[in-house]
Amino acid sequence: MGLSRYYTPTRVTLGPEAWKEVACELKKEGARKVLVHYGSARIEKNGFLDSILCLLDEAGIEYIRLSGVVPNPRLSLVRKGIDICRKNGIDFILAIGGGSVIDSAKCIGYGVRYDGDVWDFYSQKATPQDTLPVGCILTMAAAGSEMSDSSVITNEEGGLKRGCNSDVCRLRFALLDPCLTYSLPSYQTSCAVVDIMMHTMERYFTSGSSLPLTDNMAYALLRSVKEAGQKALRRPDDYEARAVLMWASSLSHNGLLATGNDTKGDWACHQLEHELSGMFDVAHGAGLAAIWPAWARYNLAVNPGRIAALGRNVLDISDSGDDMKDAEATILAMEDFYSRIGMPVRISGLGISLSDEDINTLAYKCSFEGKRTIGAFRKLSQEDMKAIYTLAR
Amino acid sequence: MGLSRYYTPTRVTLGPEAWKEVACELKKEGARKVLVHYGSARIEKNGFLDSILCLLDEAGIEYIRLSGVVPNPRLSLVRKGIDICRKNGIDFILAIGGGSVIDSAKCIGYGVRYDGDVWDFYSQKATPQDTLPVGCILTMAAAGSEMSDSSVITNEEGGLKRGCNSDVCRLRFALLDPCLTYSLPSYQTSCAVVDIMMHTMERYFTSGSSLPLTDNMAYALLRSVKEAGQKALRRPDDYEARAVLMWASSLSHNGLLATGNDTKGDWACHQLEHELSGMFDVAHGAGLAAIWPAWARYNLAVNPGRIAALGRNVLDISDSGDDMKDAEATILAMEDFYSRIGMPVRISGLGISLSDEDINTLAYKCSFEGKRTIGAFRKLSQEDMKAIYTLAR
Repeated sequence: MGLSRYYTPTRVTLGPEAWKEVACELKKEGARKVLVHYGSARIEKNGFLDSILCLLDEAGIEYIRLSGVVPNPRLSLVRKGIDICRKNGIDFILAIGGGSVIDSAKCIGYGVRYDGDVWDFYSQKATPQDTLPVGCILTMAAAGSEMSDSSVITNEEGGLKRGCNSDVCRLRFALLDPCLTYSLPSYQTSCAVVDIMMHTMERYFTSGSSLPLTDNMAYALLRSVKEAGQKALRRPDDYEARAVLMWASSLSHNGLLATGNDTKGDWACHQLEHELSGMFDVAHGAGLAAIWPAWARYNLAVNPGRIAALGRNVLDISDSGDDMKDAEATILAMEDFYSRIGMPVRISGLGISLSDEDINTLAYKCSFEGKRTIGAFRKLSQEDMKAIYTLAR
Repeated sequence: MGLSRYYTPTRVTLGPEAWKEVACELKKEGARKVLVHYGSARIEKNGFLDSILCLLDEAGIEYIRLSGVVPNPRLSLVRKGIDICRKNGIDFILAIGGGSVIDSAKCIGYGVRYDGDVWDFYSQKATPQDTLPVGCILTMAAAGSEMSDSSVITNEEGGLKRGCNSDVCRLRFALLDPCLTYSLPSYQTSCAVVDIMMHTMERYFTSGSSLPLTDNMAYALLRSVKEAGQKALRRPDDYEARAVLMWASSLSHNGLLATGNDTKGDWACHQLEHELSGMFDVAHGAGLAAIWPAWARYNLAVNPGRIAALGRNVLDISDSGDDMKDAEATILAMEDFYSRIGMPVRISGLGISLSDEDINTLAYKCSFEGKRTIGAFRKLSQEDMKAIYTLAR
């Protein structure tokens, strides 16, 4: 048993109209000139952006807007943001959106306080030491970036999607109003459910020992998200269900559910999915759903007891006394759940027809040209990656 | 549904020999001259204190020791600590111990940065605005003070035990080595189990709505602590059990298990127990065990469904379809569990024989001379307090 660390300094406010605290939070941070960073024209058109800017105006906080963040956020926009911040003396970044916007904001924050190329942090050439502070108004609950140490950016040159983990980028504040997610389309809600669950499942599939407390809380979160997801799909304005999804998105990715465990988890499915969406630009949650069953089948024999325990505690698999049998039932039950919420369980379900050459390319890139393995539950070589992509095809 | 807040900036390191990070953590904080604050002569005699001081010496960090903290930590020692800090230019307080030592350290921290009398914060005459930073090496898992916003101090003048809650006092770091609790005597381990469970149960008994995710995680924690407590009593050096208790002590009191709920919880049992241990100096956990059954019986009709759900999810009460019946069974099952781990379920079990006059005095003091109610699950007047003390007698 080694040391594990838990560090979540983000001030969270959860509840209806939490976003109205924005000026108060910015004042606490001493922010004077803010980059207001967001994605779509939707919040411009529906008046939500104006409501926020109005609060900033009233508080005498200056701002510059930067919109245009897309899912799998792009390095080119990040570079533009760094430039704007430097030229205008921006001292705080306010992200309004979901994981893509927050990740983009984190990357801009790193870049402003770094003399070299910000991509260095994502190509593992350098480690972030500083950032412009970032806070957020969350409008989509999925990625958990609002409390995580992670950001994922896509470099259009080469279609590389890469992550960077550092406590430096932990947000100063996160304003979580579940009502803002009422208008999320069903497909995105389902993607969110998978994304949230997978952040916990990646941590759950540790290679070594795990703390029973952490396991039990992981099961509690997974069950809660599974139920809330189905409720939110039936009734998109179910406050309780949306609040569960939103708070679970944060807790699932803030490190809580790996604390006390031997490793920080497996994360192979995330790496496999990153290559897939780097190449095909698929929705992250749907990509994870398409890959997990193949990953689980490929690794069934590694620790069938742990897969079976997941099924027994989360998916109502009754204990037959045979771990292998129950583990197989667990994978089927997870596929069944994913299917019922409209998620794919194969890559073909994403509308992608992978050729053998595609698979070779994906595995080549995912293994950093054969130079790294991924995973902790079981270390996966380039050949293993090919096998999983093939199983998932 | 109102706003709820979650703010836990403490850097936690959990695992064997976590305390060896102490110099590294103090350096991160820029500490140069530290008040090393602790309780008993035990850590002096067994060499543990020397091991820590050695690490400080090696790192070139100066220190002054202040020992003598007792359970229900005293204001007089706090005053002494404030004086030492001021006279010696102390810039950081390192607490080595459990809740009492950390609470004492928090109170010293407040006092050093306040011109008035530090008791003002505990008698609600003033609100803390600043503190000398505090970090800890935890040697006892129970109170959860290592991540909480709370400190409780006993003023010998009048035997007043009072709490102060403020985010200002959140610790900068907490080093959690479960092995340090192997030597904890059975009685103290049992007290710890009750204390940890009660921090979650106080939050669980909210007056309004609660988030299913938060309820499910509360059940998960309570079940885990119940199991780990029994294991630790059977085998005091069971690493896993001790780690569950230690991490649960932090999570139970850091605010996590009230987030998303309408209120921060009930806390009446804590207030009733504070008066009791202010007057009789009983162990906090044992005092809570002696009071909870009476509190629950007195409030049975308020929301039997919620008491019953606790029993069904934590104490293996099967759902009879009758909430009132299951709630009664829950209280009996909790009493049974407390008894099995050697905890009292009545005040007489603490060796205290309460007179009617004692009860009048306790209720008078607990109600701030009749000027306040306590509790949220149900607001309790001075008369209600008398009735509960009488039921618990």
